Amino acid sequence: MGNTKRAPLQGIKVLDLTSVVVGPVATQFLADYGAEVIKIEAPEGDLLRKLGGASPSGTMSAKFLHLNRNKRSVVLNLKTDEAKRALKRLCAQVDVVVVNMRPKALERAGLTYDDLKTINPRLIHCSLLGFGRKGRYANRPAYDSIIQGASGIASVVDKMYGQPGYVPMVMADHTVGLIAVQMILMALYQRSQTGEGEGIEIPMLENMAAFVMAEHMYLRTFDPPLGGNFDPRVSDPQTRPIKTKDGYICLSANTDRQAFGFFDAIGHPELKEDSRFCSVAARFRHTREYFDLRSTALLEKTTQEWLGIFDELSVPAMPYNTLESLPDDPHIRDVGLFQPIRHPTEGDIWNIGLPNTLRNGASAEYSPPPALGADTQAVLKEFGIDADEIAALISSTGQRQVSSGSD
Amino acid sequence: MGNTKRAPLQGIKVLDLTSVVVGPVATQFLADYGAEVIKIEAPEGDLLRKLGGASPSGTMSAKFLHLNRNKRSVVLNLKTDEAKRALKRLCAQVDVVVVNMRPKALERAGLTYDDLKTINPRLIHCSLLGFGRKGRYANRPAYDSIIQGASGIASVVDKMYGQPGYVPMVMADHTVGLIAVQMILMALYQRSQTGEGEGIEIPMLENMAAFVMAEHMYLRTFDPPLGGNFDPRVSDPQTRPIKTKDGYICLSANTDRQAFGFFDAIGHPELKEDSRFCSVAARFRHTREYFDLRSTALLEKTTQEWLGIFDELSVPAMPYNTLESLPDDPHIRDVGLFQPIRHPTEGDIWNIGLPNTLRNGASAEYSPPPALGADTQAVLKEFGIDADEIAALISSTGQRQVSSGSD
Repeated sequence: MGNTKRAPLQGIKVLDLTSVVVGPVATQFLADYGAEVIKIEAPEGDLLRKLGGASPSGTMSAKFLHLNRNKRSVVLNLKTDEAKRALKRLCAQVDVVVVNMRPKALERAGLTYDDLKTINPRLIHCSLLGFGRKGRYANRPAYDSIIQGASGIASVVDKMYGQPGYVPMVMADHTVGLIAVQMILMALYQRSQTGEGEGIEIPMLENMAAFVMAEHMYLRTFDPPLGGNFDPRVSDPQTRPIKTKDGYICLSANTDRQAFGFFDAIGHPELKEDSRFCSVAARFRHTREYFDLRSTALLEKTTQEWLGIFDELSVPAMPYNTLESLPDDPHIRDVGLFQPIRHPTEGDIWNIGLPNTLRNGASAEYSPPPALGADTQAVLKEFGIDADEIAALISSTGQRQVSSGSD
Repeated sequence: MGNTKRAPLQGIKVLDLTSVVVGPVATQFLADYGAEVIKIEAPEGDLLRKLGGASPSGTMSAKFLHLNRNKRSVVLNLKTDEAKRALKRLCAQVDVVVVNMRPKALERAGLTYDDLKTINPRLIHCSLLGFGRKGRYANRPAYDSIIQGASGIASVVDKMYGQPGYVPMVMADHTVGLIAVQMILMALYQRSQTGEGEGIEIPMLENMAAFVMAEHMYLRTFDPPLGGNFDPRVSDPQTRPIKTKDGYICLSANTDRQAFGFFDAIGHPELKEDSRFCSVAARFRHTREYFDLRSTALLEKTTQEWLGIFDELSVPAMPYNTLESLPDDPHIRDVGLFQPIRHPTEGDIWNIGLPNTLRNGASAEYSPPPALGADTQAVLKEFGIDADEIAALISSTGQRQVSSGSD
């Protein structure tokens, strides 16, 4: 406090050869905490610039904006040998390279860990894969939805909703992006102790299968199994936001204290003695009746009325937020999660602030997601590539050379 | 590789004061890569030991097994002053403390970052919270379901399935646990550079709201908005595993090349020229017809037949796995994700292996999730607490002193 704070990842250079979601999620975290992230884009740019929806410029979709702040953009036409050589020179000078190509493509491009460690022994090389290299799907294409379908997420939806379906988020991409951050940071810590670089492989299918099964392998964890897969505690169709007089409320009353508080709240303290509801085990045996009781009782008052009553009786409850109401949730406003920002080309936008806080380390100052190739010239110069080469590299991308920002 | 590999987090001591899911997810990752994780349990034990389902011993549910390997268990009765003092002595000698208490309870227990940094300036203190301390929900209780309901997850389910509902996983707990790992590892890296400890706060609601909205704030990211929330690319009710003659298949054919391959696969190459289907934009405008076409065509052959055809034509497709079929998926078997292990009290169980690989760093040897208090005596001795004190501490927990493992 009072002293000048330093960002934890200050001085770390990251070469980001990824696009769309899984890689950008990972590198944005690094950028948010002070790493210099150089996003390499093909001349047509990261697909997500357009795929993520409309935008004022047509090249800065909302999803792109939320996953690419605090990065610099360099365009290279990697179909040319000059650009391949330039890329290798960048690889030789950074701390971290993140790629999401299939194993065969990575080999063809000469960008495997083995290729790069010879020119940069301290390099941390993070390879995002659909499927581990030792399994038969290794070179198959991976997309979020098919990973959800193959990893058990769609099966969990089936068990809950009666038909295989996806969770309507790019949940596999997003989650594996978070996991990649862990692995990269662990390798940075390791390097601080040993001086040694690291080659990391992160397969999406295996990560999501592990994520789902930690929870839902359930009684088949035991051999012989003690019962089936799937934790029934999340499976009842009534485990969902519950209707009130004017909307929905989210309620969790599982312990005796909470359930008894709930019985008091609805004016039926006698249920504490009811053999169906008097203990955790009894309520578990009578889940359906307990949930029916809740859904009938909650219709009597408004969400706000119930929240006041439950708060006094220490029954865990929260308002149900729609995507529309969430930014106006009073707590979310208190903490300033959504921040108005002026983007140089997109006008006023809402940035999603960092949810977590550090007492000593600083986060990076916000810098807006970059225009395609905005930093090509400046970055190539900083990495020691001379002016003639830079001109040729830019010319091969079809972009015009921009003179700003090179000093 | 011939050389003896070293686990990246070897030498790091973690005091884990958490229970159930969010904290244990985080500390298990640290344990899996070599940190010494000491799990502090109350005399009744982590709730998840029983709450996570049946087990041979009755105290090692499947969920507990999947989140607590490679840890040691120490039981303390923190209602006694002696145990509180012993805990402080442990806090003074570790690298990381992880807590998930509400702010007021943390203050009462004297376990805030400010309390502990005076006795351990290099300490990394990670506080898992339901809600950030600067917002009005700060001291409310948090559970996975109500966080899902308040953070927009239940709203996304509503937009897809027509009614607010939860994703049938403890998705908020699990995801925030992964995020906690990032923050802890970043602080460890930071400390390696500056020598300074760190106080981290990780609020669940804000993290999950950011997770959802990065994807689904969508056209409301712009001010004035260019349209509504929610990315329509995941919203069509037909965006789900598709029925075949004998089951389901997961298909992703979005680019022209993939869609055209799909038209070849179903024997209708003329659709490549059809004005409804000839480009990404055309198919987007005719999403419903494109999906109807897919669901009709796929009924003609079995899943395995389609997989063979799609593979040849480079159309991304995968088998749909149920929770039951997943462990037998041939790729999952190739990589050995599920490993048979013999647990000392639970008999044969399936451990979920580490999905990611490191070229240089080692992961920890598997050690089974501990019996309640298995390491109390050994750990307390290692931390310099004398035999009489240890005896008194154990006696106050109601457990018997165990003589094994203390040397």
